[in-house]
Amino acid sequence: MSRSFLLALAVALTPPLVAQSPPPSESASIVAMMDQSVADWNRGDLDAFATSYKNSPDILFIGKTIRRGYAEMLAGYRKGYATREAMGTLSFTQLEVQPLDARFATVTGRFHLERTAAGGGNADGYFLLVVEKTSSGWKIVRDDTTALTLPQSK
Amino acid sequence: MSRSFLLALAVALTPPLVAQSPPPSESASIVAMMDQSVADWNRGDLDAFATSYKNSPDILFIGKTIRRGYAEMLAGYRKGYATREAMGTLSFTQLEVQPLDARFATVTGRFHLERTAAGGGNADGYFLLVVEKTSSGWKIVRDDTTALTLPQSK
Repeated sequence: MSRSFLLALAVALTPPLVAQSPPPSESASIVAMMDQSVADWNRGDLDAFATSYKNSPDILFIGKTIRRGYAEMLAGYRKGYATREAMGTLSFTQLEVQPLDARFATVTGRFHLERTAAGGGNADGYFLLVVEKTSSGWKIVRDDTTALTLPQSK
Repeated sequence: MSRSFLLALAVALTPPLVAQSPPPSESASIVAMMDQSVADWNRGDLDAFATSYKNSPDILFIGKTIRRGYAEMLAGYRKGYATREAMGTLSFTQLEVQPLDARFATVTGRFHLERTAAGGGNADGYFLLVVEKTSSGWKIVRDDTTALTLPQSK
């Protein structure tokens, strides 16, 4: 069974939160955005990956520190993942979309980063995202990512 | 300077995210809800504390595991904080409210739990909450809390 199928199934099984929930096609659009971000990451294209976030000074990225705004988010990724080897190969599992209203939804899931020891070793964790339906499609506006296995410090 | 004043200042300094942002009084209402939850916790009243969450089967509480729904959230708190000593004394710092739209907002902040060694020792961490304006006031519908210093296992 393909991962996309399993993700679609997870989305299909997610009960709607409120009466004004977006239709299932919106959840599929959000999962497609997440799939695209993984493909961009695994191609080593951080600039493309970053477009899964809303280009706004108000977005929040919460990891070991709180980063605010698109520029700071991208700079953080560039610093933390400076080489193709440090980026490794990203995958998401247990992705679940829950609508808030027609414009906002949350996404939870786990990430796995497969990396060589030189790249920092494997990393795992989970995240809660808030995504917004913008004129450019669904974009991440809040990201709280928790690493369970911290990458080796350099 | 009182903590309430500092929280109010932090809220006042928070730039609105979107044009349809709730007025500053809404942010003050959200901070008041958070203050009330701290007061309930520090009185040892878990049932009152839990009412800061929306009474819905769809809420998510993400800690070391994902708990879903009000009953599971409350059961998790009851298990993790079975005694007054295990509850300790809770405080929030760096609280920041950012509106999403008129009905939803996010809250970020840090928590500190002051506890005796027998209670599990001190604990610290940070959180991202999604709060919803319901007919019963602002309520937490998503909670991603990350402990930086894990309590001692028992």
